[in-house]
Amino acid sequence: MVLGSIAVFVGAPRVGVAAEIDQLPSWNAGPAKQSIVEFVGKVTKEGTPEFVPMAERIAVFDNDGTLWSEQPMYVQLAFALDRVKALALKHPEWKKEQPFKAALEGDMKTLSVGGEQALLKLVLTTHAGMTTGEFAELVKDWLATARNPKTKRPYTEMVFQPMIELLAYMRANGFKTYIVSGGGVEFMRVFSEQVYGVPPEQVIGSTGKTKLEVHDGEPVIVRLPQIALINDKDGKPPAINQYIGRRPIAAFGNSDGDFQMLEWTTAGAGPRFALYVHHDDAGREWAYDRDSSIGRFSRGLDEAAKRGWIVVSMKNDWKKVFSFESK
Amino acid sequence: MVLGSIAVFVGAPRVGVAAEIDQLPSWNAGPAKQSIVEFVGKVTKEGTPEFVPMAERIAVFDNDGTLWSEQPMYVQLAFALDRVKALALKHPEWKKEQPFKAALEGDMKTLSVGGEQALLKLVLTTHAGMTTGEFAELVKDWLATARNPKTKRPYTEMVFQPMIELLAYMRANGFKTYIVSGGGVEFMRVFSEQVYGVPPEQVIGSTGKTKLEVHDGEPVIVRLPQIALINDKDGKPPAINQYIGRRPIAAFGNSDGDFQMLEWTTAGAGPRFALYVHHDDAGREWAYDRDSSIGRFSRGLDEAAKRGWIVVSMKNDWKKVFSFESK
Repeated sequence: MVLGSIAVFVGAPRVGVAAEIDQLPSWNAGPAKQSIVEFVGKVTKEGTPEFVPMAERIAVFDNDGTLWSEQPMYVQLAFALDRVKALALKHPEWKKEQPFKAALEGDMKTLSVGGEQALLKLVLTTHAGMTTGEFAELVKDWLATARNPKTKRPYTEMVFQPMIELLAYMRANGFKTYIVSGGGVEFMRVFSEQVYGVPPEQVIGSTGKTKLEVHDGEPVIVRLPQIALINDKDGKPPAINQYIGRRPIAAFGNSDGDFQMLEWTTAGAGPRFALYVHHDDAGREWAYDRDSSIGRFSRGLDEAAKRGWIVVSMKNDWKKVFSFESK
Repeated sequence: MVLGSIAVFVGAPRVGVAAEIDQLPSWNAGPAKQSIVEFVGKVTKEGTPEFVPMAERIAVFDNDGTLWSEQPMYVQLAFALDRVKALALKHPEWKKEQPFKAALEGDMKTLSVGGEQALLKLVLTTHAGMTTGEFAELVKDWLATARNPKTKRPYTEMVFQPMIELLAYMRANGFKTYIVSGGGVEFMRVFSEQVYGVPPEQVIGSTGKTKLEVHDGEPVIVRLPQIALINDKDGKPPAINQYIGRRPIAAFGNSDGDFQMLEWTTAGAGPRFALYVHHDDAGREWAYDRDSSIGRFSRGLDEAAKRGWIVVSMKNDWKKVFSFESK
């Protein structure tokens, strides 16, 4: 991966001058793109005071709303709702019991009244009672057929092309890229390597408890309906410390759930970088911030400028949002 | 790191034939060494059915008793006992309260009667109530001056030279080496990179809960006196799954605390490797197995042969145990 930046020169060996190929083609020229390129250039330039050794080039990325769309609902919630439907025959009591009743009826209003507790109950109930291998198969099969309700696209196509380029660009410059998301870790690991180039061991997410059992002489890991870690808000820096044991030097998010991660990252010594993706593009994606129930972005929006954090306008800073756009 | 195996050929470019340099010089020739070299050769040979892609070459190593000596007591317990002494002035009540009284009096017999609960209480009490940065400094300072009570050597010299060579050899062949130990993760991370070449993000250990706080406007992570994860016995496979999200293909341990890790590793499909270090060398290190309170090795010893797991005799298979040995 660290040799990736060499590859761009391969096309022009005979002229003797390497053409500078834009590694972030879906980003419009402007202060956001410039700040990224300047930061990466700075920390990778040996012999300068701001040089950062490769081992310390840790970059952390939120997932929902930062790397892929989180509208009209979190992808994992869509999965959980489909699981409720699939399991309903075995659970006749769900027809009368909330939040399952609302889930079965597609009654998003009642579900949202139940808040995070209702969603957590849905997720814990439908994601447990099976081995980790069985769960991964369920997610894989679901992702192959499920579609975003608005765009009718597979969820794995609803990833932000500029962020995919950014992940690859940072890895080509010796960064280790991590996903640090409130989403379930075993949900994300099913597609993170293929879609983002991020291997499972670099995905940190909300985590359920598990237990080792021996089934027919074979050890298996069984998912329990209990929370081990909620990886959101002020839970993110402790999780980063627990899993990585180093403070990142760059952090990327889109909501107030990422605020503490950006704050923790930028409070370290030496060069630091923090960037928020601002959903201001109702035409190509969605437009929401302060008053949104999903991905609320208010404190971050207020404090980014004074903290020196970059706010990316999806509308103005991104030439393309999705790879499937025709222009 | 993956280019390491090339380096051994650099010395002999003119003769045109690469000399085979032994990358495991502290291992005596024999079935144990041979099994390691054969396994590594097999999984790295492209185009064969047993070839394993580099991303899946995960190797997990226990620490206490596998990579360094755990006698006459766990190193982290020695640290905890010294912390009790350092903090005793602030805690006059400890003169009467167990297990602190025993710790202050060096009464190991009473401590051992208290069992794991007593040790856990000592560790939790003395390792909490400070930031993660402060804790790392304490460990670092302690390791600089503390000595093994028997050998009078710094603990970081009490590492097994054959295992250091093995770690490097596996990394040179594209393996990602992880430590998966019952020891405290933040204790081990202080020296793992320097001593073992294992970066902090590849150390998995027992873990205390932590909490994000803001002190004078600066975010800090504070250690709480509560357990998040005990990484031992049947806790190891779930921890590996939680942190790495892939099943290792090779596992190394020394006690029944590692049994489930070796079992989980070798139950996967394709080529697998498991190895136990057997402490049978009273002259150069210690000799203990079935009846030991530290590093009890009984079920593993009984079942290794039928499971195809290698048992290394420290006495017979290791030319050198420690790097400081004269011969």
